[in-house]
Amino acid sequence: MNRFKHRIEEAATSKGTRLILSLDPTGIDISKLESYALEMLEKLSDYICGVKLNWHLLLPLSLHDISRITSRAHESGVQCIADCKLNDIGSTNEVAVRYLMDAGFDAVTVNPFIGWMDGVDTIVREASVRYGGIILLTYMSHKGASEGYGRITLEDGRAEPFYRVFAYRALRWGCDGVVVGATRTDIIREVYGILGEDIPIYSPGVGIQGGSIVDALKSGAKYVIVGRSILYSQNPEEEARRLVKIIDSTLCSP
Amino acid sequence: MNRFKHRIEEAATSKGTRLILSLDPTGIDISKLESYALEMLEKLSDYICGVKLNWHLLLPLSLHDISRITSRAHESGVQCIADCKLNDIGSTNEVAVRYLMDAGFDAVTVNPFIGWMDGVDTIVREASVRYGGIILLTYMSHKGASEGYGRITLEDGRAEPFYRVFAYRALRWGCDGVVVGATRTDIIREVYGILGEDIPIYSPGVGIQGGSIVDALKSGAKYVIVGRSILYSQNPEEEARRLVKIIDSTLCSP
Repeated sequence: MNRFKHRIEEAATSKGTRLILSLDPTGIDISKLESYALEMLEKLSDYICGVKLNWHLLLPLSLHDISRITSRAHESGVQCIADCKLNDIGSTNEVAVRYLMDAGFDAVTVNPFIGWMDGVDTIVREASVRYGGIILLTYMSHKGASEGYGRITLEDGRAEPFYRVFAYRALRWGCDGVVVGATRTDIIREVYGILGEDIPIYSPGVGIQGGSIVDALKSGAKYVIVGRSILYSQNPEEEARRLVKIIDSTLCSP
Repeated sequence: MNRFKHRIEEAATSKGTRLILSLDPTGIDISKLESYALEMLEKLSDYICGVKLNWHLLLPLSLHDISRITSRAHESGVQCIADCKLNDIGSTNEVAVRYLMDAGFDAVTVNPFIGWMDGVDTIVREASVRYGGIILLTYMSHKGASEGYGRITLEDGRAEPFYRVFAYRALRWGCDGVVVGATRTDIIREVYGILGEDIPIYSPGVGIQGGSIVDALKSGAKYVIVGRSILYSQNPEEEARRLVKIIDSTLCSP
């Protein structure tokens, strides 16, 4: 099996879309969450190369329920990302990665603040034996990101913002992707300057959070993650199709 | 209702124990996880003032299953902590806290690296309307903690390790507790020097991870979190009783 980085690239190329759906339902009764998720995948799978699930579904549902959602996604050639922002000690990370990948996830998001030793190392080990991907948080899309990811730290005696330190960690740790919020295109450009084409940038935070797809892509993002603007739309399919067109025309323009 | 900080203090005082069980089963079939958790609570609830659950149970089980575990704990006067190390954007944190507290959790752990704005602020808001507690990660128990929590950052132009910045954040944000690993008693002492008796220190990492209960308590920890040394013991009740005695004699010695 190919590693995640290549699997999602193949899905994006063959399906003609770099849109990832953030499948985070709100205001829906727990008993209806699974059917809602399956219905949304049914409607949207032609327009997405990946789907990202977080606590909106992972907490209320059991992994048994979740595995039916990942199966449905795979049937349409959609890669599945568990957006858990893992940040625990080794023994817990190990169990979490095993559970998630056994439930059909292709990749997990990881907060690099936990460090390598007995932290990220166990995630890399458990994920790689399952051909699973690791996407490292490098600069999140919310305002508070500046208080952590944007903070200055001393790296080998030099003052550097954390997101630069994390981008270099992603290279050293052989990650499959990094997350940089679309709300900070200056940081996308800076991180792209470090990673180039080696490690793709995943960019959430467009639409409701204020980021622009066009600006994120032009700054170096490879995949765009969108949730609420699609899910809350009157016509989710129409909205997804519209976003794919924007992505297409941005990537095709000189 | 009292806030969490006072509820767990009352539980500790009335039950005569400052031991918190980290209920993280490994090597148990998913179909038997719930009954294992209930059985362990049945055996151990006399020796603990709190129980802490993380991905070992929260991922495989649904919140419906989990709420039976928190109910069982409450019947024995045991407070329930969701050790999710929350570190997401506001809208996701909000949903996670609501789900967890509706499922019976009294407190959540939070990674302060996400910052206040549209990060920790939503957790504080959602938790406080439910009288829920917030326990802030300040220095974790694993080796990699030095690469993040122990790293030097610039705070108002001064070079400070992150754990000191986080301890001051805990005061400013009115948190109910902080986590400092028992593996670093020097840091427990330093954090205790900042927080005093205002915010209790929760200390994991004793036993298998190498920390000592006696040293952690003497350095300023108020609650000791133990998982594997109890769960993996031939006789979990006997081991829990032994640890409570160690805590007692440490706190009673001059």
